[in-house]
Amino acid sequence: MEEWINELEEDVFELIKNKRFVQLKQLLSEMQPADIAEIFEQATDKDIPVLFRILPKELAAEVFVEFDSDKQEILVNSFSDSELREVLDELFMDDAADIVEEMPATVAKRILKNTDANTRRQINQLLAYPDDSAGSIMTTEYIDLKRTMTVDEAFDRIRKIGFDTETIYTCYVIGSRRKLFGTISLRDLLLSGKDEIIGDIMDENVVSAHTLDNKEDVAAMFERYDMLALPVVDSEGRLVGIVTVDDAIDVIQEAASEDIELMAAILPSEKTYLKTGVFETFKSRIPWLLFLMISATFTGAIISSFEARLAQCIALVAFIPMLMGTGGNAGSQTSVSVIRALSLGDIEFKDIMRVIWKELRVAVIIGVVLGVINFIKLYLVDFLWLHTFDTGAELVEMATICLTLIFVIIVAKMLGAALPIIAKKIGLDPAVMASPLVTTILDAVSLLIYFGIAAALVL
Amino acid sequence: MEEWINELEEDVFELIKNKRFVQLKQLLSEMQPADIAEIFEQATDKDIPVLFRILPKELAAEVFVEFDSDKQEILVNSFSDSELREVLDELFMDDAADIVEEMPATVAKRILKNTDANTRRQINQLLAYPDDSAGSIMTTEYIDLKRTMTVDEAFDRIRKIGFDTETIYTCYVIGSRRKLFGTISLRDLLLSGKDEIIGDIMDENVVSAHTLDNKEDVAAMFERYDMLALPVVDSEGRLVGIVTVDDAIDVIQEAASEDIELMAAILPSEKTYLKTGVFETFKSRIPWLLFLMISATFTGAIISSFEARLAQCIALVAFIPMLMGTGGNAGSQTSVSVIRALSLGDIEFKDIMRVIWKELRVAVIIGVVLGVINFIKLYLVDFLWLHTFDTGAELVEMATICLTLIFVIIVAKMLGAALPIIAKKIGLDPAVMASPLVTTILDAVSLLIYFGIAAALVL
Repeated sequence: MEEWINELEEDVFELIKNKRFVQLKQLLSEMQPADIAEIFEQATDKDIPVLFRILPKELAAEVFVEFDSDKQEILVNSFSDSELREVLDELFMDDAADIVEEMPATVAKRILKNTDANTRRQINQLLAYPDDSAGSIMTTEYIDLKRTMTVDEAFDRIRKIGFDTETIYTCYVIGSRRKLFGTISLRDLLLSGKDEIIGDIMDENVVSAHTLDNKEDVAAMFERYDMLALPVVDSEGRLVGIVTVDDAIDVIQEAASEDIELMAAILPSEKTYLKTGVFETFKSRIPWLLFLMISATFTGAIISSFEARLAQCIALVAFIPMLMGTGGNAGSQTSVSVIRALSLGDIEFKDIMRVIWKELRVAVIIGVVLGVINFIKLYLVDFLWLHTFDTGAELVEMATICLTLIFVIIVAKMLGAALPIIAKKIGLDPAVMASPLVTTILDAVSLLIYFGIAAALVL
Repeated sequence: MEEWINELEEDVFELIKNKRFVQLKQLLSEMQPADIAEIFEQATDKDIPVLFRILPKELAAEVFVEFDSDKQEILVNSFSDSELREVLDELFMDDAADIVEEMPATVAKRILKNTDANTRRQINQLLAYPDDSAGSIMTTEYIDLKRTMTVDEAFDRIRKIGFDTETIYTCYVIGSRRKLFGTISLRDLLLSGKDEIIGDIMDENVVSAHTLDNKEDVAAMFERYDMLALPVVDSEGRLVGIVTVDDAIDVIQEAASEDIELMAAILPSEKTYLKTGVFETFKSRIPWLLFLMISATFTGAIISSFEARLAQCIALVAFIPMLMGTGGNAGSQTSVSVIRALSLGDIEFKDIMRVIWKELRVAVIIGVVLGVINFIKLYLVDFLWLHTFDTGAELVEMATICLTLIFVIIVAKMLGAALPIIAKKIGLDPAVMASPLVTTILDAVSLLIYFGIAAALVL
C-alpha cells in the first residue's frame, strides 16, 4: 500500500512543478481524500492553500477533514470568509465540532462566526460533552421518521434530507420531543411494500447508548452487534445523535494504542509517531521512567541490607538478574492478558477469583517446569562446567535458586492477575498495572523471597 | 453493559426452570443474537439444543454464528439433516466457511453434504485462501449490477437478490467475466433519477484489495477510507468477493490483541481469556519464558566473571537492578512505540534513520535528566543518609552509576528503535522485538557498560 502512494506523490509534485493544473485536478479527482491529504501534507505551508483550491468543492471538504490540525489551521487562516463557509457547509457536524475543538481560540471563533445559528448551537452542544463520552463522538444529523409514515413517505424524506446526513442506512423513528421508538434499516425499507406503515415494520428492540456512556464501551457495542450506526439518547430517552461505524473504528484503534502505550510506561498521546516532536515524546516518557527509577531504590536497599552476607556468597548475586527477569516476564504475561481481557469485556470484577484460580494453576505448572529445567541447567552448566559454585554447599545453593524461581513465578502471576482487576474496580486504568509497575514491585518481592530462602538454607 | 446481561440471564434461566417457553420465546426474540449466545453458553451441553430450538428460524442462525466452535459442534451434532439445512440456508457464505473450518473433519463433511453444489463450491473456494489473506475474510454474496442498467432496474435487482447478501449499501458494477468496473452506493442510487444509467453515475475510482493481500492491511484500508465494504479482486481484476466492515473490525481487534500478546512474550491465541484452558495458557506462555530464562545465563555469566572484583566493591551490586530496570523500561518504551507505529502504517523501513535520529535526541535528554536526578538522589539519600558508600571513592562510584545510566538509556532507545524495524524488513513480526527480548539483550548490555565504566574508574 505504501509504494503506490509514493509514486502518486511524485506524479502530483511533478505536475505542480510544471504548473499543469488541469491534469493535476483530473488526477486528484480520481484519488481518495485520505491519500490526497497525505500527499498535500508534504507540501510547504505556502503551497497547501494553493493546492487545496484546485480541488472540487465537495472533495475539498473531505480532504480538509483528513488533514491534521496544524494544516487545518494554516488553511482556515488562508481562507476568505466565503471560502470558509463553503468548506464548513460540506462538513458533517461531528467533524466540524472536532475541528473547532482543535483550533486556537481566535480561529475557532472565526469558524463559529461563519456558521449559521443552528449549526453553531449544535457544534457547541457537541463540544460540551466530556472527551471520553459517546456524546463527544456522535453526530447530530440523521434520518428521522415518524411511526405513522408509509414506506413511500419515508423514501421521500430520505431523498429530501439524505444529502446532509452521514448515513441513510439506518433511520430513526421518533415521536414527540424526539423520543426514540425504534429503528428501521434502509434495507428493510427497500424490501418492504410501499404502503406499509413504519410503525408496523420498525425494529423496536433498539440497541442505544447514553450521551455520557464511555466511548470505548460504545465502540465495543459495534463489535458485539455488527452495527453500522448506534443511536445516542439523553437521560429522558430522547434521540440526540448517532455514532457511525467509522468513528467507532477510530475509537477502537485509539483505545488499543492507549493500552499499549500505558503497558510500556508511556503517557498516551493522540498524535502519530513521526508527528510527535522530540520534546513531546520526552514529556510522555519521562514521568514513568523517573518514577520507576526512584522505586528501584527499594531493590537497591534490599540488596544493600544483605551486603555483608552477600559478599561471602557472591555466587548467588549472579542469579539475581535471571530471577528478577523471569519473575517480571511471568508477571507481565499475566497482567497483560488480564488487561486485554478487561478491555475487550471478556472478564469483569466478579471473575476475579476465577482468574486468580486459573493463574495459580498455570503458575504452578510453569514454576515447576522452569524450576526443574533450571536445576538441570545449573548442575550441568554452572556446577560441572563453569564451576560457578565452589562453596561446598552447591546443592543447597542450587536448590535455593530453583525454589526462589518457583515462588517468584507464583507470586508474579498472582499479582499480575489481581492488580489490574483491582485497579479497574477502584477506577484506575488497568493498563497502568502492566509490565513496568508490576515488574518493579516484583523486583523487590523477588529479592525478598530469594534472600529469605537463602537465609534459611545457606547464609 | 455487564449488569443488565446478568439480570437477563437470570430471567432466562428462571423461565427455563419453570418451563415457561412461550414467555421465553417472546423475551428472546427481543434480544440481540450476541446476548442470546452469551446467555445460552452458560447452559449445560444438553440444554443448549433445547434452548436453540425455541428461537425463530432467522434469529437462530444469527445466534448460531455467535457461538464458539465447541457449542456449534454440539448443536450440529444434535441437528437432524433438515434442521442443519435450515440453519445453513440462513448463513452468509463467509460465516459458513468459518464454521466448516473450525469443525472436526466428520462434522465439516456432514455440513458440506447438506449444502447445495453451488454453496459447497463457494465454501471450498473461501477455505482455500491463506489464513491471513483478504480472501479468508471476504464473503461471496454481493449485489452486482451492469453498466447498462437504469437506476430503476438496479433497484429491481437489489429487491430480488438483496435478501441473501450481507450488505446492499454498496453495489458492484461488473462486466463480462465479472470484471469490476465501478461501485455505486445505495445512497447515490436513491438520490439519483430513476432513468439514469448506472454506467454514467457509478464511481470508477474503486478502492479494492487483492485476494492474497494481508487481511490486516485490508482492515487498515477501512480505517483510512471510512468504507462499509471493500471489493476483493483476483489477479485478473475479476470481482471474487467483498469484505464488510464488521469483519474488518474483528481483524483490527485481533491484530491489536496479537501485538499486545507478543509484546508480553505470549504466543497469540484466538480464544478469549476465560475460554482458554489452563494447559493451553501454559503452552502459550512457557516457550518465551524458557527462552528468556536461558538467555539470562549471559547476564549471570557476566556478573560471575566480575565476581572477585565485585566482592571488594559490593556497593555497586545494589544498583544493578535499578540500571537494568531503567534500561529495560527505556528500551521498551521505544520498541513498543515503534511497533505500534509500524502496525498502524505510520512508519516503514525507509523511515529508519528518522526514527533513530528522533530517538537519539529523546534518549540524550532523558538520559541527562535521569542521570542528574539520580546523582542528586545518590548523594542525598545513599551517601549522606544511608551511608551506602563508605569506600572513600564515593564520588567516583556515584559518577559510574550515573554515567552508566545515561549510556544504558541511549543504547536502550537505539536498540528499541532499530530492532523492530529491522525485524519487519527481514519478514519477522516486529512485535516479537518488544519488551522481553529487548530487555534481555539490554540486561547483558547494561552490565557490560556498567562493569566497563567501573573497571575504568573504580575497580
